[in-house]
Amino acid sequence: MGDLKEKILTAVEKDLIAIEAALQKNLTPYLDLVADVAGHIIFSGGKRLRPLLMVLCARICGYQGHYDKTFSSAIEYLHAATLLHDDLVDGAKLRRGKPVAHLKWGNSTTVLVGDFLLARAMSISAGTEKLKIIRLLAELTENMSQGEVHQLMSKGNVELTERDYLEVIRRKTAMLFEAACRTSAVLADAAAKKETALAQYGYNLGIAFQMADDLLDYTTDSAVLGKEVGADLKEGKLTLPVIYALREAGPDDRRKMIEIITDDHFHPSDFKHLIGLLDQYGGIAYTRQMAAGHIATAKAALSAFEASGTRDTLVDIADYAISRQT
Amino acid sequence: MGDLKEKILTAVEKDLIAIEAALQKNLTPYLDLVADVAGHIIFSGGKRLRPLLMVLCARICGYQGHYDKTFSSAIEYLHAATLLHDDLVDGAKLRRGKPVAHLKWGNSTTVLVGDFLLARAMSISAGTEKLKIIRLLAELTENMSQGEVHQLMSKGNVELTERDYLEVIRRKTAMLFEAACRTSAVLADAAAKKETALAQYGYNLGIAFQMADDLLDYTTDSAVLGKEVGADLKEGKLTLPVIYALREAGPDDRRKMIEIITDDHFHPSDFKHLIGLLDQYGGIAYTRQMAAGHIATAKAALSAFEASGTRDTLVDIADYAISRQT
Repeated sequence: MGDLKEKILTAVEKDLIAIEAALQKNLTPYLDLVADVAGHIIFSGGKRLRPLLMVLCARICGYQGHYDKTFSSAIEYLHAATLLHDDLVDGAKLRRGKPVAHLKWGNSTTVLVGDFLLARAMSISAGTEKLKIIRLLAELTENMSQGEVHQLMSKGNVELTERDYLEVIRRKTAMLFEAACRTSAVLADAAAKKETALAQYGYNLGIAFQMADDLLDYTTDSAVLGKEVGADLKEGKLTLPVIYALREAGPDDRRKMIEIITDDHFHPSDFKHLIGLLDQYGGIAYTRQMAAGHIATAKAALSAFEASGTRDTLVDIADYAISRQT
Repeated sequence: MGDLKEKILTAVEKDLIAIEAALQKNLTPYLDLVADVAGHIIFSGGKRLRPLLMVLCARICGYQGHYDKTFSSAIEYLHAATLLHDDLVDGAKLRRGKPVAHLKWGNSTTVLVGDFLLARAMSISAGTEKLKIIRLLAELTENMSQGEVHQLMSKGNVELTERDYLEVIRRKTAMLFEAACRTSAVLADAAAKKETALAQYGYNLGIAFQMADDLLDYTTDSAVLGKEVGADLKEGKLTLPVIYALREAGPDDRRKMIEIITDDHFHPSDFKHLIGLLDQYGGIAYTRQMAAGHIATAKAALSAFEASGTRDTLVDIADYAISRQT
């Protein structure tokens, strides 16, 4: 899979440089402290997947203007704002191998810098001079915050259903991917059919991306991942591999799994045992299969566009989303 | 002063009913929990001063449309969002005599519901279909969050200057009042001169309002105010009465004042002593005088409009802002 990543990175090398420059240029706080905290989350080795999707989707729609790179900062700032607030809400300790912002600067500053980034995202969106884009991003933000509240309410609930899980990841992840792809089509004044196709691509990519992300907690070791072993579980987050396995397990194994899940200080050997059960009852395989289905749908949506290098890259990104190891 | 309040309330009775109805109608979360937390802050006996200013400013500009009441919800939601986040940042315990949201529902939910309200405000602004309004409110939100960070950085700093204080209240309070008045002029397609006049009115009213608010901490007892005795001081917030008195006091009294200010658990008798010193060194009188000056400027700005019942009410609101006891 290293080859696929290399192939994508080569294709978008110039775009990534331009995206990075825009992220630096558009931040513009008047306080150094705000720049420091925002910089900590924004310039910490993120993949730039969302802004990259924006730039590529604008391009595949034939966008000729100069605002696509600037606009791509909006979605990354919005994403960063939610990461700042969500890490605080989740009581996370590490992100990408670094201490989270609220442990470094305290909860108060982190909340306020998150607000600043939300507002910056809206200001940049207003710069598109397209009301539809502004409306989409404002509604997205409403949905993301509610998705996170929903997830918070569900913490530690071993009765959580696959449907609840889908409702949460739809709002907290898939809608952001959808918005990134869809608003770019709007920016490019693309036909409704293309806008819908890109919305579908983004949405399904987002669902699959989150499922793959949730799998990583059980399939990759923490040194590679840059966060704690079993972080999701420690935060009380039940994701699809667990939800599925709990449903399929017999009473004894189900009891054992719940015991581990609800223990705040489970031992690494317990965690290993849990992973064995997730595997045994098909939780891992089922999640992989569902993610693969969404990726197939995402790629199919791209058939609304003629073959091109940009379309190939969007296809590669979809494949990469479910094959990545970090 | 009870007479002035009654006079205003009689003049705007129907507006307040319509504003209240709009606040109920425009909230629209999908989770009950979000409705509960948002409702706790929004429907807790606020004065509705900001939405009322919006409705009155639109009217004085001859606005004939139907969006003014809906639009007035945007500014109140934005205000509520900042109250949720600021109370958390300040570690406040009571607001309007009730426990603050984060003590009732926890920090996490409070942060996320604040985000939801910020986003609702932007969605409603987008409904005006005026890019200028959206831009003004997004920039306002950037400024408010930075003003709050600035205040946070200044906590407990006994070297704080009047200039620092003004910079903070400008961003955290005055700009919101300014935006409420100015965006209404934009909504009404008013001439630039009128827009500027209302911006001036709102800005100066906001500065005076905050100064009057800061005075209340030293002039009104907490049962009437609905928050703790000396709440600002306990949160480490140095406001103009204190900043001025510290500057004017001799070394001994200055030392005594700093002793009280920096003591997290000061005794009520110490607080009484401090108030005596604020009075003795003119901190109270100076703050009153500055606030009165801003109110005079605010009222003068209204001369851009012909005499009318609406103008009279805006004048009354300005007078009330610095005479209120709660």
